[in-house]
Amino acid sequence: MHKIPVGVLGASGYAGRELSAFIAQHPRLTLAFATANAQRGETLELPGGAVTFIATDDAPLASAELVFSSLPHGASAEWVARARAAGARVVDLSTDLRIGNGAAEAVPYGLTEWTREAVRSARVVANPGCYPTSALLALLPLLERDLIASGATVSISSASGVTGAGLSPRLDLLFGEVTENYRAYGVGNSHRHLNEMRAAVQLLARDVDLLFTPHLLPIARGILSTITVPLRAPLADPLEPWRTRYAGEPFIEVVDALPELRQVQRRNVARIAVRRVEHVRTPTLQIFSAIDNLVKGAAGQALQNANLMLGLDETLGLPR
Amino acid sequence: MHKIPVGVLGASGYAGRELSAFIAQHPRLTLAFATANAQRGETLELPGGAVTFIATDDAPLASAELVFSSLPHGASAEWVARARAAGARVVDLSTDLRIGNGAAEAVPYGLTEWTREAVRSARVVANPGCYPTSALLALLPLLERDLIASGATVSISSASGVTGAGLSPRLDLLFGEVTENYRAYGVGNSHRHLNEMRAAVQLLARDVDLLFTPHLLPIARGILSTITVPLRAPLADPLEPWRTRYAGEPFIEVVDALPELRQVQRRNVARIAVRRVEHVRTPTLQIFSAIDNLVKGAAGQALQNANLMLGLDETLGLPR
Amino acid sequence: MHKIPVGVLGASGYAGRELSAFIAQHPRLTLAFATANAQRGETLELPGGAVTFIATDDAPLASAELVFSSLPHGASAEWVARARAAGARVVDLSTDLRIGNGAAEAVPYGLTEWTREAVRSARVVANPGCYPTSALLALLPLLERDLIASGATVSISSASGVTGAGLSPRLDLLFGEVTENYRAYGVGNSHRHLNEMRAAVQLLARDVDLLFTPHLLPIARGILSTITVPLRAPLADPLEPWRTRYAGEPFIEVVDALPELRQVQRRNVARIAVRRVEHVRTPTLQIFSAIDNLVKGAAGQALQNANLMLGLDETLGLPR
Amino acid sequence: MHKIPVGVLGASGYAGRELSAFIAQHPRLTLAFATANAQRGETLELPGGAVTFIATDDAPLASAELVFSSLPHGASAEWVARARAAGARVVDLSTDLRIGNGAAEAVPYGLTEWTREAVRSARVVANPGCYPTSALLALLPLLERDLIASGATVSISSASGVTGAGLSPRLDLLFGEVTENYRAYGVGNSHRHLNEMRAAVQLLARDVDLLFTPHLLPIARGILSTITVPLRAPLADPLEPWRTRYAGEPFIEVVDALPELRQVQRRNVARIAVRRVEHVRTPTLQIFSAIDNLVKGAAGQALQNANLMLGLDETLGLPR
Repeated sequence: MHKIPVGVLGASGYAGRELSAFIAQHPRLTLAFATANAQRGETLELPGGAVTFIATDDAPLASAELVFSSLPHGASAEWVARARAAGARVVDLSTDLRIGNGAAEAVPYGLTEWTREAVRSARVVANPGCYPTSALLALLPLLERDLIASGATVSISSASGVTGAGLSPRLDLLFGEVTENYRAYGVGNSHRHLNEMRAAVQLLARDVDLLFTPHLLPIARGILSTITVPLRAPLADPLEPWRTRYAGEPFIEVVDALPELRQVQRRNVARIAVRRVEHVRTPTLQIFSAIDNLVKGAAGQALQNANLMLGLDETLGLPR
Repeated sequence: MHKIPVGVLGASGYAGRELSAFIAQHPRLTLAFATANAQRGETLELPGGAVTFIATDDAPLASAELVFSSLPHGASAEWVARARAAGARVVDLSTDLRIGNGAAEAVPYGLTEWTREAVRSARVVANPGCYPTSALLALLPLLERDLIASGATVSISSASGVTGAGLSPRLDLLFGEVTENYRAYGVGNSHRHLNEMRAAVQLLARDVDLLFTPHLLPIARGILSTITVPLRAPLADPLEPWRTRYAGEPFIEVVDALPELRQVQRRNVARIAVRRVEHVRTPTLQIFSAIDNLVKGAAGQALQNANLMLGLDETLGLPR
Repeated sequence: MHKIPVGVLGASGYAGRELSAFIAQHPRLTLAFATANAQRGETLELPGGAVTFIATDDAPLASAELVFSSLPHGASAEWVARARAAGARVVDLSTDLRIGNGAAEAVPYGLTEWTREAVRSARVVANPGCYPTSALLALLPLLERDLIASGATVSISSASGVTGAGLSPRLDLLFGEVTENYRAYGVGNSHRHLNEMRAAVQLLARDVDLLFTPHLLPIARGILSTITVPLRAPLADPLEPWRTRYAGEPFIEVVDALPELRQVQRRNVARIAVRRVEHVRTPTLQIFSAIDNLVKGAAGQALQNANLMLGLDETLGLPR
Repeated sequence: MHKIPVGVLGASGYAGRELSAFIAQHPRLTLAFATANAQRGETLELPGGAVTFIATDDAPLASAELVFSSLPHGASAEWVARARAAGARVVDLSTDLRIGNGAAEAVPYGLTEWTREAVRSARVVANPGCYPTSALLALLPLLERDLIASGATVSISSASGVTGAGLSPRLDLLFGEVTENYRAYGVGNSHRHLNEMRAAVQLLARDVDLLFTPHLLPIARGILSTITVPLRAPLADPLEPWRTRYAGEPFIEVVDALPELRQVQRRNVARIAVRRVEHVRTPTLQIFSAIDNLVKGAAGQALQNANLMLGLDETLGLPR
C-alpha cells in the first residue's frame, strides 16, 4: 500500500527521536526527512533501518504531506509557516502556537480526545504540552459538567521524569545531580504550562483558579499529576464523569487502582483514577493522572493528531 | 570520659541500623546491645567495630541507661514497658505510643523543636513518624500563630524514598518494581501518619482539615513534602514565621531556594522554603519541607531526643 | 486466521509475564492459559486484554499445542513431562533440561542461531539461560573456527540487571539495597550458568577453560558480557568471524561501536562488538555482548524457538 | 588550636567540592580560598558555613601552607608551579604530574600506602587517578612479592559511577542517557589511567601486561575493579598477601565477603577481597577492589597525603 511521506523538523531531541521511531514502524507513513542542525550528517538508528539527519534549512518540505516540528520553542513558528506554505499539513510540538502563550494565530489545540473534529480538518495543529496533557485530561470531565466549586483553587501537583526537560547539556540534569534526588522547581517551562492550562479552562468559561507545582523525578520518562479539586457537591459515584466521558476512547484508561508510571511508559495512554478525600468539610476529589511525557505527552499524541489529519485510523502505529 | 550505655531493640531494620551507627560514633554513648530476632548471631558492621545481634528476649535491659525501640508497630509498646520497668529511659520509634494512634498512655511526643522541655524530663518519648516530622515542622509555625484560614483544607503532598517502608521483603519494594516508577499510595502507614498529624494540630486547637497524599519515589532515602496552605490574610514576608520560630535551631534550615533531597540526606536537618502562590484569589502559601526519613525522620531525631533525656548537648553525635 | 493456542506455566514471574505479553500481541498465537499458584485468581493486564491466573494443577495442558514452562528450577521438569504426555510441544525456560546440569534426558538446546534445525523438529526444547545466551552468542563464532589459543582461559565478566534474579522477595534485591550499589556475586545460579557454558564448549570439543564472574547492576533489565579471549594468532579483521557467521540473522547485530544496554532493552537481539587488545604479548580479543535478559535471554528466545517448532516465521511477534 | 590554611584550585567540580567539604570539617585545617572561574562569586555550602568561589587568577597562593589543585588535566601543572613558587606545598589531583603521563618532572606519586615516606617529605605530590588507585592497591601486594606469572596478561575490568567523568555538561552523562544503562567505553581517560598503572608496575620491574576495560555504571559514585591474575603457583592462603601487607593500615579493608560499592561510599577506604578461580589449569586469582572514586580515589587520598605533608596524623578529617 502507498505510504504517506512525512517529515520531522528537530528530530534529534527526545520527542523527535520518539516520533521518528513511531513513523519508522507506522504501517501507512514513511519518514521523508529528519532534520537536526547540530547532528547533521549523523545517523539515527530506527526500527528497520536508519536515517541521516539533514540541516533544517535543507528540509524538502514540499516532499512531505505532513510535517512534525519538534524545533525549540521560539524557533518553531517560522518553520510551521514555511511547511504550510510548501503545502504540508503541520503538527507543531513546540509551545509557539499553543493557547495561552500569545500566539498571533489561533490554531486547533491537539488534545485529541477533546478537539477531535477540529484536528481532523486542521491544516496546522498545536500539540499540547506534557504537563497540560496530564492535567487537562484529568480535569476536563469535571469542568465540562461544571462540578468544581466556583472560585475554588484547583491544585495540580505534578512530577516528571527528566526527558521532559529535553536533551540539553545542563549540569542540573546530569545523572550525578538527579539520581537519588527529588525537588520542586518553578522556572522556565512551568509558566508556559500553567498559561496553557489556564487558557484551556477559560475556553470552558469556568471560574476556578489553578495552582501548578512541578517536581523533577529521578526517572527518564513519565508524569504523574496528583490533582486536588474542591467540588460543588459530593459525587455519588466519583469515577462516573471519567467513565462516561471517556467510554470507548482507545487511549484513556479509567481505572480503580492508583496508576503507576510504569503502567503507561512507552504507551500512548493516559491512566486516570479518582479518590474521594475523607474527613474534610469541603467535598473534595483527588484525581491521579499518569502519562508518558514523550508519548501521550508529546510524540504519541502528535501522531494521533497526524493520523486524524491524514484521514487514517487514529490508532495506527501507536503503542498501547 | 565515661560513656553511657544505651541499647537498641530491633536493630536490623533501616532505622535501627542507622541508629546503631550513630551510637557507635557518638562521643558520649556506647552500644550496650542490639537485638534482632531473625538475624540473631549475625554481625552488623559499624564505624569502629561490629556488633552481634542478640534475640530481643535476651536483651539485658537493665544494663542500659536508655533504650531505643525500633521494634515493629504493635510489638513495641510491650518492650517499652519492660525497658521502663528495668529502669531505663526509652525512645520509642514505633507508632505505638504516638499521639493520634490510640495509645493507652500519653507520653511526650518527641518533635524536638516543639517539645524540648517535655522531652528533657521524660522517662519515655514517642519519636514522631517520618511523614509527620516533615509536615509538622513545616506547618506548626503557621498554626501556632493562627495564620491559616479557619476551616480550610491544608493539602500535604509528600514523596518518600523506599527505606520509609522498612527493610521488609515485599515484592512491590523490589528494585525491579521501583526503578523508573512513581506512584501515589493510600494504604497502611498513611492512615497512621495522618492521625498523628491531625492529633498534633488538635493540640493547638486549630480548625483546619488535613489532606495527606503519600507517593513512593525511586530513591533510597528522603521525604519532600509540598504543602499548600490557604491563609487568613496575605503575609508581607512569607518566610518570616519560620525564620522567627526557628532562629538558632541547630537542625532547621530555613532557606530561600527550593530544597532538594540531596541537601538533607544523611543529615539530621529539616530544610524549609516557602512560596507565595500567584494568581489565585485565596491568599495561599506553599511550603516545601525536606528531610532524610531515616535521620531527622527517625534515628537522628531519636538520638536528638535521647541526648536531651540524658542531659547531654542536644547536637552530640548528629550529622549536620 | 486460526490462532494457535499456547499455555504458560509459571506466568507470574518476570519471564512469564514478558512471555504472556508477547503471546497476547502475537499475530498467530493465542494464550490458552497462564498459571501461577500463589497468584491464582488474580489478573494480569496484557496488551488488548487481561488473563486470570489459574493454579498450575488446573492447567488444561491438552488444550495447548505448545506449552512454555517458566516454573522454578527443580519444579519444571515434571511439568514438562506432563505437558508432553498431554500431546503438547514444550519450551522449558528452567535449567532443568539444559546441557551441563545433569538432565536425565537430552533435549535440544534452544540457542536458536546455533541449533535451529534441531529446534524445528523438537518436541521439547531447553531454552538457554540469560548469561549463557549472552556469552555463547559472542564466543561460538571463535570456537567453531578453533581460533582460541589451546588451553587458554577465556574470561567472561558479566553484569546483569536485577530481573535476572527473578521476582522473589529477597532482601538483597530491595530497591534500597540495590540502588547506587554494584557488586560481584558468586552464588546460586552462577554455577548453573557456568556448567551450561562449559557443556556448550565441550560439544565443540574445544580445549579452553572458562572463567565466569557475574555482577549485579542497579538496573531492571539487560546483561552486558565483556569477554576476554587469548587467540591462537592475531586476526587481520577482528570482526569478520561474527559478520560472517551471523550474516542474515534477524536477531544478531554485529556492530562497530561498543554496545549499550539501552540499545537492546525490550528487543529480542544480541548486539556484539569486538576490540583487539593493544600492548599485550598474547594476541587477545575482547568481545562485548549485550542482550535483554528477559527477551533474548529468556522470553523472546523462547518464543523464537516456539515459532520454529510450530512451523511459523521465526520472527513473528518478536520485538526488534 | 591554630588551624593551618589550605587552598583549593578548581573547587567547583565533584572532587573539588568533596575536598572543600572535608577541609571544612577538618580539626586542624581551614579553607583559605576556593577557586572556580566559571562560578566565581557563587557560594558553595559547606558543613558549618559557606565559601565564595574566587577566580583562579585571584587565588592568594602565598596565604596557604598547602594548595590542592583540582584544575583540569593540562591546566593544572602551571598552577602547581605557581603555588610552589609562592611557597606552598601542593597536592595535584590532575594527571599532569602523574607517572606514565610524560610529566617533565618526577614528583612523588601519592598512593599513600605505598609511598608514605616520599609523600611525607615532598613539596609536591601527584595524587593517583581513581581507576589506578582501585587497581594498584589490589595488585601491588602480588607484584611486590613477584607472585604473578611472568609475561602474563593481568585483566582489570572496572566499573565506575558517573562522577568519575567530572561535572561537565556532556549529553552522554545526562540522567536520561545513563539511567537503566551500562556500557564499556574506551576513550579519553582510559589511556591515561592505563599508562599510569603500567608505569607503577614498571617501577617494580615486573614483566606483566595490563589490560584495562572501564565501564560506566548508573550510579553517582564508586569504582569496583574485578582483576584476574594468572599466578606463578597456587597460593595456599590466597588472602595472605593482602592481610600481611596491609596489616594496620587504617584505610584498607581486607575482607572475606565480596565487596559492595555501598560499603565504601563516602569513606576513604579501599575494600579488597580475593577468590581462587576454580576449574582452570593456570592457577588464577580474582581480586575485587572497591573504592569511592571521589574519596579514596580523589579527595580523600589527597587529604591523606596532605596530612602527611603537613606533619599531621594521617587519618585526621577523613571519613572511615
